[in-house]
Amino acid sequence: MSEVVRATVPAQTLAEAVHAAMPMAQELLDALESHTGATKGITRTPYGDGEQYAHDLMADCADRLGLRHAVDPAGNLYLTLPGQDSHTPCWMVGSHLDSVPNGGNFDGAAGVIAGLAAIAALKSVGVVPRRDVTVMGIRAEEAGSWFSGVHGGHLGSRMALGLLEASELDTAIRTDTGQSLRRHLQACGCDPARIGEGQRHLDPARIHGYLELHIEQGPVLEQRAIPVGVVTGIRGNSRLRDPKCIGEYNHGGATPQAQRRDSVIATSELILAIDGKWHELETAGEDLIFTVGKLYTDPKLHSLSKVPGEVGFTLDIRSASPEVLATMRAFVIESASAIGARRGVKFDLGAFSLSEPTVLDASMRQTLCAGAAALSIPIAEIASGGGHDAQEFVRAGIPAAMIFVRNANGSHVAEEGMELDDFELGTRLLSWMVTG
Amino acid sequence: MSEVVRATVPAQTLAEAVHAAMPMAQELLDALESHTGATKGITRTPYGDGEQYAHDLMADCADRLGLRHAVDPAGNLYLTLPGQDSHTPCWMVGSHLDSVPNGGNFDGAAGVIAGLAAIAALKSVGVVPRRDVTVMGIRAEEAGSWFSGVHGGHLGSRMALGLLEASELDTAIRTDTGQSLRRHLQACGCDPARIGEGQRHLDPARIHGYLELHIEQGPVLEQRAIPVGVVTGIRGNSRLRDPKCIGEYNHGGATPQAQRRDSVIATSELILAIDGKWHELETAGEDLIFTVGKLYTDPKLHSLSKVPGEVGFTLDIRSASPEVLATMRAFVIESASAIGARRGVKFDLGAFSLSEPTVLDASMRQTLCAGAAALSIPIAEIASGGGHDAQEFVRAGIPAAMIFVRNANGSHVAEEGMELDDFELGTRLLSWMVTG
Repeated sequence: MSEVVRATVPAQTLAEAVHAAMPMAQELLDALESHTGATKGITRTPYGDGEQYAHDLMADCADRLGLRHAVDPAGNLYLTLPGQDSHTPCWMVGSHLDSVPNGGNFDGAAGVIAGLAAIAALKSVGVVPRRDVTVMGIRAEEAGSWFSGVHGGHLGSRMALGLLEASELDTAIRTDTGQSLRRHLQACGCDPARIGEGQRHLDPARIHGYLELHIEQGPVLEQRAIPVGVVTGIRGNSRLRDPKCIGEYNHGGATPQAQRRDSVIATSELILAIDGKWHELETAGEDLIFTVGKLYTDPKLHSLSKVPGEVGFTLDIRSASPEVLATMRAFVIESASAIGARRGVKFDLGAFSLSEPTVLDASMRQTLCAGAAALSIPIAEIASGGGHDAQEFVRAGIPAAMIFVRNANGSHVAEEGMELDDFELGTRLLSWMVTG
Repeated sequence: MSEVVRATVPAQTLAEAVHAAMPMAQELLDALESHTGATKGITRTPYGDGEQYAHDLMADCADRLGLRHAVDPAGNLYLTLPGQDSHTPCWMVGSHLDSVPNGGNFDGAAGVIAGLAAIAALKSVGVVPRRDVTVMGIRAEEAGSWFSGVHGGHLGSRMALGLLEASELDTAIRTDTGQSLRRHLQACGCDPARIGEGQRHLDPARIHGYLELHIEQGPVLEQRAIPVGVVTGIRGNSRLRDPKCIGEYNHGGATPQAQRRDSVIATSELILAIDGKWHELETAGEDLIFTVGKLYTDPKLHSLSKVPGEVGFTLDIRSASPEVLATMRAFVIESASAIGARRGVKFDLGAFSLSEPTVLDASMRQTLCAGAAALSIPIAEIASGGGHDAQEFVRAGIPAAMIFVRNANGSHVAEEGMELDDFELGTRLLSWMVTG
């Protein structure tokens, strides 16, 4: 990644060009917001109207910019600025155009718009990058919120990269329609027959690197008052989807406390134990977060005056370190066993799922940091808590990096609060990067 | 309560007479079980078919025994063996004939059948008790499991005793039908116009004492291998019906642990703190039990990967000591406040309800203990955890006592396990008692 080529655009020139592209970016964001608004926030259902509107909007914008335009069998959109040598592996700049239900306007879309704005800026100052720069509008990244059944998530990028199992076409079911992924692809004019069994639209050998700009989903940049993040990696997770604590239902007025097999107290103790272990590892400098997002006694059987005989819950442990994930899995299994024995209950944990942490490309990260310094953009290196399409590119053997933009109020909520000034800085770094 | 009068029946004679009444008791229990069976256990819905069947069955049995038969405006049943002097305040021997949904066959019904068996035994040996002995079949004791809305529970006995507010006729709503108590009374041919505003069917001045035989709802007698209990009092309770812990929903992958306002972890900590306080008071010899019977994140908003922003739960604290109840209330309020401050959440506890502990009549308890000694029945004095109609009689100013019968597997479950031999001993003590 030669600094020489990038040096052909003076930092000040690039900054002014990107700044000049911001009204276009704002128009795209506004159009998205007004056309995909829901009762609360926005909803861009994968393979639904909102996502399609976003794809059409980006394609129209690309037409105005004179970009090449393609769609793959999964409906992913490719908008290409030809470089000096189209035989050289290209830059792929992407993010997703769907959203969670009642989500925010920036999660996903910001990355596609940043790609278009970067291209607009480069064109405006007459720069022809060394490589083709392709902006990819990815389908169905938020599959986890929309599709139930058996599937591996990140459907659009996995289909493009040949990572989707053919069976997922029929086992991924969109919850709101009850229809399979295959049926939704057909309904959108896509071509499911060309998906699965290793068939891929993207050839890793033809891609120099994948770059994704995304709002930060957590509060780290905001709290540190830094506008842009260079992402070190994407946390992996180990999850229990449906663990239960089985005790015994009993009369809540007549059963002496010491003779109860109370699933609520036992589960509370397990949760507190995990919290204590988190504190220990956090203090030791390890990367770890955990969430018990669901916790529920049985609404058919529970009552105010009955000793609770069963509790269900979920456990999501995330870390950038595979070792920390393994430590936590062992701790949870041991603690559940010890608490169960002491309190006369049984934890049926089921098996932990495991999604390994993703390490983003060290060379690209280093170049991004160098670029930020050259462009005087304040950055922090931070881990990504949420999953992203970038990890699928890494899995496919393509070097990938991510740029985070400071964002208030979290993501997946109507209140997502990215400022255009911060977006501009992220886009400036992105535009600099693709000239190399 | 003269020992002289009771001495007119020799212990051995009484024992044999009660033993001879057991086949009748067993037939009644069998008929109840076969006619009110549900998919699991039995269901005798208050003011529904199952309860009505039980009332009709008891009335038929009373007819065969030649007892007087009356029904009050609330549908409670009164079956009377006239004594030597019907002007002397009577013995009232009662329990309820309804059940919880999918409950057991003995909770409630055993007490009514014991009254009929005791009368059958006395009649069989030609004993005419000094006082009228009235067996009361009470309606809707399990109202807490069937009626939502505003009501004070124990509907049948409270209506008989003039303790029901007139407004409860319309604010108590049977959950399965959506109909008010008033509508159900009307549908059963009862007379709600004669209920409420202090109107009562039973005059405390006309009742010498109320005696209730009931299965023990906890495991104390079984674990101590004692067949019969003389109840010291009924635990009071302080309850939180709908407390909430309010935190903040957030991205479960991106929000650093230390910056979360996690309602699940905070609530777990509160539950564990209450458990610790229980342990402290238990060790100090205090009477205390507590139950968090319901615990639930919001099924509309929770997910595996979202920091839980809200948890609902219930808290039922019970003790025979008003001071312990007050100590626990203060402890919960203080702990919730401290945990909330430390963890960035807010506990909206609402107000504690308070049902004061009921002390059963000391003289009647003493007589029961003396009678058990005279009849060679092993007893233990124990507190009642569950609420009973007896406490309403105490509230109305009528001396009351309770006899517990050993029972396996708890109550309110299909598996209630009272043995007829133990029931016979409890019935023997009851029959002895009503001769005085």
